[in-house]
Amino acid sequence: MLKGIAASSGVAIAKVYKLVQPTVEIVKKDADPAVEVESFNKALEKTKADIEMIKERASARLSEEELAVFDAHLMMASDPDFAGQIIAMIENEKVNAEYAADCVSNQTVAMFEAMDNDYFRERAADVKDVTYRLKCNLLGLNIPDLSLMSEDSIVVAHDLTPSDTAQLNEYAKGFATAIGGRTSHSAIMARSLEVPAVVGCAGVLEAVNHGDMLILDALAGEVFVNPDAETIKKYEEKAKAYAEEKAALQILKDAKSITTDGHEVELAGNIGNAKDVEGVLNNGGEGVGLFRTEFLYMDADHFPTEDEQFAAYKEVLEGMGGRKVVVRTLDIGGDKKLSYFTFPEEMNPFLGYRAIRLCLDRTDIFRTQLRALIRASIYGRLCIMFPMIATVDEFRQAKAIFNEEKENLIKEGVQVADNIEVGMMVEIPAAAVNADNFAKEADFFSIGTNDLIQYSMAADRMSENVSYLYQPYNPSILRLVNMTIQGAHKEGKWAGMCGEMAGEPYAVPLLLGMGLDEFSMSATSILPARKMVNNLSKKEMEKLAEEALKLSTAEEVLELVKKTVDK
Amino acid sequence: MLKGIAASSGVAIAKVYKLVQPTVEIVKKDADPAVEVESFNKALEKTKADIEMIKERASARLSEEELAVFDAHLMMASDPDFAGQIIAMIENEKVNAEYAADCVSNQTVAMFEAMDNDYFRERAADVKDVTYRLKCNLLGLNIPDLSLMSEDSIVVAHDLTPSDTAQLNEYAKGFATAIGGRTSHSAIMARSLEVPAVVGCAGVLEAVNHGDMLILDALAGEVFVNPDAETIKKYEEKAKAYAEEKAALQILKDAKSITTDGHEVELAGNIGNAKDVEGVLNNGGEGVGLFRTEFLYMDADHFPTEDEQFAAYKEVLEGMGGRKVVVRTLDIGGDKKLSYFTFPEEMNPFLGYRAIRLCLDRTDIFRTQLRALIRASIYGRLCIMFPMIATVDEFRQAKAIFNEEKENLIKEGVQVADNIEVGMMVEIPAAAVNADNFAKEADFFSIGTNDLIQYSMAADRMSENVSYLYQPYNPSILRLVNMTIQGAHKEGKWAGMCGEMAGEPYAVPLLLGMGLDEFSMSATSILPARKMVNNLSKKEMEKLAEEALKLSTAEEVLELVKKTVDK
Repeated sequence: MLKGIAASSGVAIAKVYKLVQPTVEIVKKDADPAVEVESFNKALEKTKADIEMIKERASARLSEEELAVFDAHLMMASDPDFAGQIIAMIENEKVNAEYAADCVSNQTVAMFEAMDNDYFRERAADVKDVTYRLKCNLLGLNIPDLSLMSEDSIVVAHDLTPSDTAQLNEYAKGFATAIGGRTSHSAIMARSLEVPAVVGCAGVLEAVNHGDMLILDALAGEVFVNPDAETIKKYEEKAKAYAEEKAALQILKDAKSITTDGHEVELAGNIGNAKDVEGVLNNGGEGVGLFRTEFLYMDADHFPTEDEQFAAYKEVLEGMGGRKVVVRTLDIGGDKKLSYFTFPEEMNPFLGYRAIRLCLDRTDIFRTQLRALIRASIYGRLCIMFPMIATVDEFRQAKAIFNEEKENLIKEGVQVADNIEVGMMVEIPAAAVNADNFAKEADFFSIGTNDLIQYSMAADRMSENVSYLYQPYNPSILRLVNMTIQGAHKEGKWAGMCGEMAGEPYAVPLLLGMGLDEFSMSATSILPARKMVNNLSKKEMEKLAEEALKLSTAEEVLELVKKTVDK
Repeated sequence: MLKGIAASSGVAIAKVYKLVQPTVEIVKKDADPAVEVESFNKALEKTKADIEMIKERASARLSEEELAVFDAHLMMASDPDFAGQIIAMIENEKVNAEYAADCVSNQTVAMFEAMDNDYFRERAADVKDVTYRLKCNLLGLNIPDLSLMSEDSIVVAHDLTPSDTAQLNEYAKGFATAIGGRTSHSAIMARSLEVPAVVGCAGVLEAVNHGDMLILDALAGEVFVNPDAETIKKYEEKAKAYAEEKAALQILKDAKSITTDGHEVELAGNIGNAKDVEGVLNNGGEGVGLFRTEFLYMDADHFPTEDEQFAAYKEVLEGMGGRKVVVRTLDIGGDKKLSYFTFPEEMNPFLGYRAIRLCLDRTDIFRTQLRALIRASIYGRLCIMFPMIATVDEFRQAKAIFNEEKENLIKEGVQVADNIEVGMMVEIPAAAVNADNFAKEADFFSIGTNDLIQYSMAADRMSENVSYLYQPYNPSILRLVNMTIQGAHKEGKWAGMCGEMAGEPYAVPLLLGMGLDEFSMSATSILPARKMVNNLSKKEMEKLAEEALKLSTAEEVLELVKKTVDK
């Protein structure tokens, strides 16, 4: 038995598919530049074609958000600087192409890894993934193709790259990797694909042979190699119990989200594109609380046209069959860039030119999106919200542009819905503190906890040195959330939350107590959240929240919540 | 008459000192690398010596904060990378030293200027200043030495570099420059030196000859060249009236800061080192509300020892003669770096590893400072505050370390004061929102408005694209300030403010109304602020603040305040 980190819940029992990537050995050789440049160009073209193919195959199973990693890879492979540096080295030093590619990529990786920051480390992983493929193509080595797997298996590997996980098909019943943590790429992918996974399981690759029987207990984070019949039986029961629990949740799919004392709330899903709608409906989502439209922009090589956007919004609204759909207007900037748009260089991009700030400056981009949304409004129940609103002036400006475009479309004879709600994200402290005034003008609020916590604590959670300040249960954060909800209710408006916090077991009781109206989360969290809501009393949670709001620290709050709901 | 921007108040009438910097012409030549490298090294040594000398001469008149620019210049001139690049170019391309210096500096300047950010543009100005001097030294050109000026004059120049302003002596009665704005280096220096200045005055250099008579009206932003006797008379009267007004303020030097209805507040000064104490006392400061200790660190080439720090703190405490001195512990990081300490690379340094976060991680650095402070405590009335506190846990940790070091010193037989107050900066939204809980543990608060506004609005004010969000009068900011003050008072603690806002004419009425106890500002703002306080009624300002806190936008607040106090 080997211990690892349970990264995606479930229990699987199947044969091992041992994924062994070819070892790339780089030897420096004197070579004819003309020949090497030609073979480099060919290998680069093949690399791009490979990535395109993997992306194409994966697009049936993955959301736009998950597919975005391949766009990053393609962008890198197509970067003239990257190719240019390698070609320059081949020509100047008269060396073989794989050696030049190796040197250039090692430099780039070292530069990214030296930065003490998750974001840059992810970029380093991207560079490694792409150049590994490039070097294999130069050396004529085949990277195993997981998509050809044809019997139920558990994949065991040193690590899974984005390209690997994207190739997993329906026969992959789970996976175990030697490295990685709960937030590594492979862990996130496993949760998204809803397959059990154990990561950071040191020695697992050496402990198994291809075809061994394996038990993967991704509830306890344990892996059993060639277990005896008794152990298999025991874990079959555990797997069954887990499946039954999941099935029991399925019964709640069409149930109401209502407390023991009859208070009803709305549980909705977050989506990145039209394909995600199915997941929300299958998991009993009562609406879409956040449609992240930036993927429409990030997944294109030009600003999407009004018609392209209209088609996407129409598809989502129709897919949700009259249920509420909250669309967030373009939230780009910070760490989200576009290949076809140059952002200003800023010392602190998270405190810079992004989201509504960009849209109010570049109203041409903003108006195109609003027109597409307004045109789509007749196909369902549309709510529009603006991201990163800090001042009432900004909201007024954005709302005025919305009204102008609505008028323009009506004048042009286009049919538009008359029940479009126009609200805003509350993710900047200034907005939360002034919520009662915002509520006089906005139709609703949706609290974005990631940014709200980041700005309220003045701590970039991607910087490891200060990630300890990412404290959703800190009383300061709870008070800002509470001000937002009370501000909305004072003016008869509704308040939702579309951040990670909305589905967390110890946050739901507090949010219910503060009176949150709508909880929007990843699709797979909806049914567990409904089960929680159905077992809680609104009155008791109100008392809990009232007490929690008086406490000093996050630890004190968590202790109180646990004492109350775990009893 | 020429129009410009009034950058530092006052009226001066004197002869023109026309500052014409030598024009540097760079011609590319083939040269012997050995000879050129030698002359480059000599010129670089002379450049460093020049800067040292200017800094030395200026140190009598300027504060540590203002002198810091020379440390930046020295650091640049001593940077082995910078010299290395120039030497490499001389050797590789066999060119003359001034050509190589010019190329390298132009590249660096272009890189900094391309960044859309005030901080980098300042760095570009530093590079230009240092390399201009370097090139003059290479070419044997003399840069005029303003410190040799020996009769009352008004300096007229295209622009004044940091080195120029630092050389101004007591004969410089004011200056007019062709370029620059209210926040350019020369404008800031003029206010600090308390000489009138008009900047951005296009054509002024061409309009004057050395020795012309000049009227500099830096109240209206006007410059008169060779005026007639009548005009001179008129402006002599204006100068007299202004001087009388200043003198009238001097009467308030020893007056109390008390409202018309008998409410007393404290007006204090911000300092960067012991030399600044004199300015605070001369301007009637009732204490020091902010001693920025980071200059002790930035102005050294090693972490200052306990004894070095002790000497500095003792000098300030003794200088203030028993008046309250609030010392802020090390606030480094963000855009404030040290030459002898490597900060982690972060994507958003303003949201990163800085101030108390660094001190709680590197307690060795923190303990040295606390020991020095505690040892100095017997020489005056010491208050210590921690910067960038976000959570109650952080405050508790910092306070515990303080208590440990106090105990240690007592055990070592060192005499320590028993009335040291230990408080905190409120400059992170989370702290303001949770102020009532913090007030149970902290002895006092000091509100830092620059950072509080920056984080509350999620806007880096150094980024021009979002600088419109720097809104001190936004109701969100006022509410956070108010929560902080009420939080303190609830527990019987006092609340101060040491940010720019504390001395602003339209902010003082609001802050008075909210009950702020201590206002700390630059020394020259104290007397005008006292005059304001003495003319306002606390009761009326309470009503004003109450109304302002209900409004939606900064414009509405400003309109209300103006209507109330300008009547």
